[in-house]
Amino acid sequence: MATPRILPPTPEAHQSQLLIGSILEQSLKYEPDREIVYRDISRITYRELNKRVARLANLLTNHLEVAQGQTVAFLDYDSHRYLEGYFAIPMVGAVLHMINFRLSPEEILYTINHAEDAVIFCHQDFLPILEALQGRMEMVKKIVLLSDSGAEATSPLPLEGEYEKLLLNQPDSYTFPDLPEDAIATTFYTTGTTGLPKGVYFSHRQLVLHTFGLATALGAMDNAVKIGSNDVYMPITPMFHVHAWGFPYLATFLGMQQVYPGRYEPAMLLQLVLKEKVTISHCVPTILQMLVNSPQVKSFNLTNWKVVIGGSALPRGLAMAAMGLGIEVITGYGMSETCPVLSLTYLNKKTMAHLTEDQEADLRIKTGRPIQMVDLRLMNEEGQFLPNDGKSTGEIVVRAPWLTQGYYKDEERSLELWKHGYLHTGDIATIDPDGVITITDRKKDVIKSGGEWISSLLLESLISQHPDVQETAVVAVPDQRWQERPLALVVAKPDTSITDQDLIRHMEQFSDSGKISHYAVPKQFRFVTEIPKTSVGKIDKKRIKKELASED
Amino acid sequence: MATPRILPPTPEAHQSQLLIGSILEQSLKYEPDREIVYRDISRITYRELNKRVARLANLLTNHLEVAQGQTVAFLDYDSHRYLEGYFAIPMVGAVLHMINFRLSPEEILYTINHAEDAVIFCHQDFLPILEALQGRMEMVKKIVLLSDSGAEATSPLPLEGEYEKLLLNQPDSYTFPDLPEDAIATTFYTTGTTGLPKGVYFSHRQLVLHTFGLATALGAMDNAVKIGSNDVYMPITPMFHVHAWGFPYLATFLGMQQVYPGRYEPAMLLQLVLKEKVTISHCVPTILQMLVNSPQVKSFNLTNWKVVIGGSALPRGLAMAAMGLGIEVITGYGMSETCPVLSLTYLNKKTMAHLTEDQEADLRIKTGRPIQMVDLRLMNEEGQFLPNDGKSTGEIVVRAPWLTQGYYKDEERSLELWKHGYLHTGDIATIDPDGVITITDRKKDVIKSGGEWISSLLLESLISQHPDVQETAVVAVPDQRWQERPLALVVAKPDTSITDQDLIRHMEQFSDSGKISHYAVPKQFRFVTEIPKTSVGKIDKKRIKKELASED
Repeated sequence: MATPRILPPTPEAHQSQLLIGSILEQSLKYEPDREIVYRDISRITYRELNKRVARLANLLTNHLEVAQGQTVAFLDYDSHRYLEGYFAIPMVGAVLHMINFRLSPEEILYTINHAEDAVIFCHQDFLPILEALQGRMEMVKKIVLLSDSGAEATSPLPLEGEYEKLLLNQPDSYTFPDLPEDAIATTFYTTGTTGLPKGVYFSHRQLVLHTFGLATALGAMDNAVKIGSNDVYMPITPMFHVHAWGFPYLATFLGMQQVYPGRYEPAMLLQLVLKEKVTISHCVPTILQMLVNSPQVKSFNLTNWKVVIGGSALPRGLAMAAMGLGIEVITGYGMSETCPVLSLTYLNKKTMAHLTEDQEADLRIKTGRPIQMVDLRLMNEEGQFLPNDGKSTGEIVVRAPWLTQGYYKDEERSLELWKHGYLHTGDIATIDPDGVITITDRKKDVIKSGGEWISSLLLESLISQHPDVQETAVVAVPDQRWQERPLALVVAKPDTSITDQDLIRHMEQFSDSGKISHYAVPKQFRFVTEIPKTSVGKIDKKRIKKELASED
Repeated sequence: MATPRILPPTPEAHQSQLLIGSILEQSLKYEPDREIVYRDISRITYRELNKRVARLANLLTNHLEVAQGQTVAFLDYDSHRYLEGYFAIPMVGAVLHMINFRLSPEEILYTINHAEDAVIFCHQDFLPILEALQGRMEMVKKIVLLSDSGAEATSPLPLEGEYEKLLLNQPDSYTFPDLPEDAIATTFYTTGTTGLPKGVYFSHRQLVLHTFGLATALGAMDNAVKIGSNDVYMPITPMFHVHAWGFPYLATFLGMQQVYPGRYEPAMLLQLVLKEKVTISHCVPTILQMLVNSPQVKSFNLTNWKVVIGGSALPRGLAMAAMGLGIEVITGYGMSETCPVLSLTYLNKKTMAHLTEDQEADLRIKTGRPIQMVDLRLMNEEGQFLPNDGKSTGEIVVRAPWLTQGYYKDEERSLELWKHGYLHTGDIATIDPDGVITITDRKKDVIKSGGEWISSLLLESLISQHPDVQETAVVAVPDQRWQERPLALVVAKPDTSITDQDLIRHMEQFSDSGKISHYAVPKQFRFVTEIPKTSVGKIDKKRIKKELASED
């Protein structure tokens, strides 16, 4: 049978591997004196960054005795040190575990043991967490202290010393090993809908290709957000969270100035945006809301700031408020399993010049279009593809060169994730004929009522339009007749009085106008003072459902 | 021994391969109604392009019985048809051979047989070439006629019919095979310094990574030339020549409007630039010179035109003339063996705002800096690296993810090419501490005089500054005492008289001022009416040397 032509390489011909180290190398080519800024504490150039990464590599392999294939964890706020770990750990052939410090101590322990962390680089603020876990961390041999002041600490933990002092004693050059591009470079944990956290993992190749994907989608596409190497980057999604969306790798690849804000404090964030002239960031809507609401914001010029929003849907009102301040705001979509970026708002001001501001806002709050190399489709429960007709509702499934190839040491959930050869996102959406994705729900949050699917997100969006509603969360509750029915948790605005009947009347407008079906109008409401949130600020529907169930 | 962590993928997990087909897929995501224009003859949208590629795939595998691993050649001017071949042929698992129609008929025959062409898509204008070779093309079974008029032709060749008519009969969808990314996608021939043409070859993976490299270097870097998807692309380096520098793949990847000019005719080229509002092109200096010299050019606004120059050095005067017309002109460097792009001028108007126009021009005419993922160094003849100090002169050697892994069926020259694990470019250069490359000569053209190296390019540049010199070429001639000595061929300007002594005096200024050594001043001159050129317009030093040698 005929096969494609594959030729054996010439004996000495170099087979280029796509390695994290090659991302770092680019930073010396163009603007090696550009700076990486840490709060108001330190500034290093790319020349220094490269030397510090070499020092860290020496520290890891000589002093800390880290071997290839071992796991080394970081437990830090967003910092230049974390960036050094993003490079040095994978570059010596080890695996970087990014610990989510917003998890509960027991969950953190679980991830440390499950990932087989041998060494942890831990910020002083988080030492108490590890101290409380002492004796239960199965493979951790050494802990390196990260301290903004440079001070040492005393602790019952096996502290090796303070990071800066340890680095100083190491040579500033290192011969990095040749690695295969499929070597695992990073790992971290996603808190699932049920059960224990799940470990996702990414190879050198996947991270390089994700970086290329972002460089193309954000750099080479004429779009509302178009970046360049002169941009100034600051993350406002933490570095433990899906590689801060891959932007630290991208910024280093392009040699951008980078700003790391440490612990997120609104005043410090705004101060850094202004002082360092930050032009590109990413964050969840909650953080943007906080900044937009900040009393100082009106006196600032934010017209050079581009912000990619992800993590949860960008509310229209927030988008309009940000646009009003001159912030160029778009939506990105992805998840822990996907490295993360899958799609971005596409708003081409030349070809879409006819759009009104309202229509522009519509595009900015939708889920965007799949970026380069992402094959994103809708699938029904039988594994059949559904058309991009703007109406068919199905689960988003994807193929791309940067998706986790499974969950670490969890065959069963790995098989589920990759059923039918596509990665299942668990998100329910429609896709327009022009490719614009609209997520209508998480699969697990969809309400299956009388054989029809009701979108909990849509109900939340409509309920929150009532002038007295501050926040709401809609979940499915079991129903004997209809299988499931929606129940809405509602936080009323201060000094308002609001009843079930008010909200039912409010919602009936939308069923009268055909926006939703009559059967979609919720009849059950709970008035609460707070909506439970997860560690990354998303509505915790799992907990809500659990608490409702335990009432029975 | 410790090894990097490599995890077996989940059974159904999709292993993304980097395939040419995924470049084409992107064109439907953003601006599917953008057009690919062919002269003043036809316009098709990306939607149509995708369908036509499917038709061509059906034509190839059904009608023409092309199997995976076979070679299919194109012999055409720059056209949308050629672009269709760029995609469909590799996408069905075959190998695209781009025939250089500027080679001699015997060389063309050699490449057709050496590449094992099974089918040739041939423009009507080139039928006579193939007709003359009939009976000697060893594996060619079928020939498809490419005709701008759509007319059939009668020929003794095994013509299958005219391209458009054949496409019409094919279905416009096709299930493309899954291919391994290392499958060879393209091949073409480079005329070497000695002996027969050498076949280089590139895999799907290499071409995708080259495309990503260009998208990043040209799109995401803030540089004098920064492109976006709204750019309008037209090649003026032929599509048979190193994938037209990879730009047709890049333009399709980003969904740019594309303009294919067919046969290069200055009036048509300028007309298309203006009518289609072309914003990005690439060409050799000769073509730019021709356009800049065109009497019409002064009445045109070319300030939106970005031009990447390659193939040979951009003369300073030409750069200044182009800048004077508002053309944004930079230099790119690469060769057939390297896909081709290795380096590009880096001129950041923000960080280099202090540069004078003269200094800017200096940067534009140098060889630029290595782009993302290109590891480019200087090596001496012993295989040792030389420093980037702006003084050390050595051969440029490279590693990158898009270099030919050898010469097809030529083990000896493959081994030479990849000696010491780096691809040898044969170019002699210095590299500044900031990474800017200056090519001083081709290795084979360097003049080895008394143990020192004299740059023939530098001598040419200095001789051509004499007001009566129109053009010059300097080559090495054997010398009993000094091993080699420079000899200059000189074309004098019309109505001037110029002697050896005039030129020696002219050159002695430069040795007096220390620009060159005394021993570098040429003493031998030949006054000629024309400098021999190769098929791609470069000075043919091989032929000059051969002719000089045969005089003896």
